Amino acid sequence: MSKHPEKETTGRFSYDGLERAIHEKARLGILASLMTKSEGLLFSELKGLCALTDGNLSRHLKVLQETGLVEVWKGFHHNRPQTLCRMTSEGRARFLEYISVLEQVIADTAAADADPQPARKYLEGWSPV
Amino acid sequence: MSKHPEKETTGRFSYDGLERAIHEKARLGILASLMTKSEGLLFSELKGLCALTDGNLSRHLKVLQETGLVEVWKGFHHNRPQTLCRMTSEGRARFLEYISVLEQVIADTAAADADPQPARKYLEGWSPV
Repeated sequence: MSKHPEKETTGRFSYDGLERAIHEKARLGILASLMTKSEGLLFSELKGLCALTDGNLSRHLKVLQETGLVEVWKGFHHNRPQTLCRMTSEGRARFLEYISVLEQVIADTAAADADPQPARKYLEGWSPV
Repeated sequence: MSKHPEKETTGRFSYDGLERAIHEKARLGILASLMTKSEGLLFSELKGLCALTDGNLSRHLKVLQETGLVEVWKGFHHNRPQTLCRMTSEGRARFLEYISVLEQVIADTAAADADPQPARKYLEGWSPV
């Protein structure tokens, strides 16, 4: 090991591309659903696909709308009011960028040691905290 | 489309396996680093790899330790106190489970429409919110 290994690889695992608006677990599910349906999904469909309550889905859609990832439309279907959610084109691009970072995370850990090694020997008199 | 599509696929995109203790962005970086070094990493090395401040790294390590993902040891190296962080064997297993869900997210979105479609036509008199 070199003397200053951290200096050579600063931020190697900081994954800056994991945009927070996308990375939140429920929002990741909402966006993945919408990516598969570019013509949009109704509020009730999204709610089912993501197993979210009305309140949680509304809250997350607000964040996604405010950050420009999703557009929300109101309209009628068979005279009943409906809400349609749809990825913006910018949202699609940002989501694909996010996915490329996830692929990096997976690639990084695929290179992980297959067999766990004993803890480093050079620490003397060490004890668990 | 069937009459009740949401019923057929309830929770299809809920990604329940994305354990929150792991999914947080900074912790994901810490764990990915530790997965590549099963003998453990020193606090100072982790700090550099993940581009975190002392305070943030300490805070996240506490969560990882409390949830059983990481073990933390104190010891000495060349008479200087050092902190060593290491995945637990349970942590490795849970991390690999988490990674398998990320792979599912990527597979789901790889199947996304290559070309965005126009918004659904059946909504009448719709307008953006």
